[in-house]
Amino acid sequence: MSLLTVGTVAFDAIETPFGKTDKIIGGAATYIALASSYFNKPINMVSVIGDDFPEEALENLRNHGANTDGIQVKHGEKTFFWSGKYHNDMNTRDTLATELNVLADFEPVVPTHYQECEFLMLGNLTPAVQMSVINQLPNRPKLVVLDTMNFWMDIALDELKAVLKKIDVLTINDEEARQLSGEYSLVKAAQAILTMGPKYLVIKKGEHGALLFNNESVFFAPALPLEEVFDPTGAGDSFAGGFIGYLASTRDTSFDNMKRAIIFGSAMASFCVEKFGTERLINLSQEEIDDRVQDFIDLVQFDISLVND
Amino acid sequence: MSLLTVGTVAFDAIETPFGKTDKIIGGAATYIALASSYFNKPINMVSVIGDDFPEEALENLRNHGANTDGIQVKHGEKTFFWSGKYHNDMNTRDTLATELNVLADFEPVVPTHYQECEFLMLGNLTPAVQMSVINQLPNRPKLVVLDTMNFWMDIALDELKAVLKKIDVLTINDEEARQLSGEYSLVKAAQAILTMGPKYLVIKKGEHGALLFNNESVFFAPALPLEEVFDPTGAGDSFAGGFIGYLASTRDTSFDNMKRAIIFGSAMASFCVEKFGTERLINLSQEEIDDRVQDFIDLVQFDISLVND
Repeated sequence: MSLLTVGTVAFDAIETPFGKTDKIIGGAATYIALASSYFNKPINMVSVIGDDFPEEALENLRNHGANTDGIQVKHGEKTFFWSGKYHNDMNTRDTLATELNVLADFEPVVPTHYQECEFLMLGNLTPAVQMSVINQLPNRPKLVVLDTMNFWMDIALDELKAVLKKIDVLTINDEEARQLSGEYSLVKAAQAILTMGPKYLVIKKGEHGALLFNNESVFFAPALPLEEVFDPTGAGDSFAGGFIGYLASTRDTSFDNMKRAIIFGSAMASFCVEKFGTERLINLSQEEIDDRVQDFIDLVQFDISLVND
Repeated sequence: MSLLTVGTVAFDAIETPFGKTDKIIGGAATYIALASSYFNKPINMVSVIGDDFPEEALENLRNHGANTDGIQVKHGEKTFFWSGKYHNDMNTRDTLATELNVLADFEPVVPTHYQECEFLMLGNLTPAVQMSVINQLPNRPKLVVLDTMNFWMDIALDELKAVLKKIDVLTINDEEARQLSGEYSLVKAAQAILTMGPKYLVIKKGEHGALLFNNESVFFAPALPLEEVFDPTGAGDSFAGGFIGYLASTRDTSFDNMKRAIIFGSAMASFCVEKFGTERLINLSQEEIDDRVQDFIDLVQFDISLVND
């Protein structure tokens, strides 16, 4: 079904204990588009790049079923660039460079042929840009998912809270859930955040899995124990892409289907971290995805018959 | 079936963000005995106390199906005492006092009527004491489970490695698995530790759940998301007690049954942390346990039918 995402399309330079890259293709919308492409096509992308961004990278996105009509090209300007170095634990990193470039004054434009959107994935960006995209849609989508981060809680909390009132699903990590709610317990944090607008909250705990809350229920999806996390960049966006791609392909936004979507999202994140950047996401087979989802099933499956049932 | 445990029977004084206790009853063998009592009776206890230990506390253990014949009483000596203060995150703590007292020269004696033991739970103690108990059994038990901690890796690594060669299941936390193996990745840590003797490894990750490894498979059990962790003292021992108690009651040591045992162990740990000390563990009903296990089932249950299956 019609799926729209807004987010960054960017250059990244990444250093991990396993090696380092020159400028490679990255950005939240790139990972979201690639991960969702295995479930639902097309994905309509809204973003902004400079004229230094290679045409073949856009072509690669289109080959994966992305529509890039909504990616503005700013001539004479440069694409957003981020550079970071991961520590040995792979859970913490230092940002070495952030060059906003075209992002500094990004005003998203949703093309007319994108506007009848049923599933909307708002990638991590300034809340004002996320709000602008929502406001350009003539009809409310069936499902709006928003990803954000602590940076926006620090510098744009009011704008973020305004966007939260417009969405269905919020995805953040555990520390961000604590910051947003002021509660240490994730159960209490979820209860508080679910009064702020979203009906569903996904708390991403990295190597410790993810929790899905609504007001009645909680679901936990593990992360797959991996021998090595090679490069965590894009894992959260790949999760979001698999999550909304699966939901869009099934058009089912029930809690039970969101559980499945979280498993598919977790599977895409587990692929993402196996290689640098988007390398692993661009060449997956359906069989590899099915095998990976089976790994998740095997990991948590147990059979207990309670006497009183 | 016949179940034997060796471990501390002790006094604890605990301070958490929610309050503090005077000297209360604690110790690894106490928690193991109480948790296992809901699955299998009797549990034969080997331990040591001073004559300051209250008779009614021993009576309480016996009322839960423990045999206390193997608990030595050292007249004129004092019971092991530990005091600690938990930080706000409840994952870290400061030890305020450790008075070894009777533990300083503890030489365990396994009574003759305990010796035909099929299931052996070696609670966290100096590896020499754990080895002594193994050596006093004329026949190897069907299953030997050992709990230990970083302290013994620091000061008695050779003795610990000698005991590891004699056991079936090792339970340690994630940091201890990394320390023992020298590997950061828990998958690689498990591979390394499974060459040291144990056929099964349980890695306890506290609020992030537990992993069970053997050479072929891995299983993940979540921790239940709780509104509050009131007092984490004894959670690992309650887990171990539920784990081996369930295995002893079913006499089934297959990987599939160990998965179930881990869920029952996790359920007992989730009760333990709800109140100070052993308070929650001493008065559980079968219905409460069944309801709690159902919570674990609901937490991780999802239904995905892969097209190619």
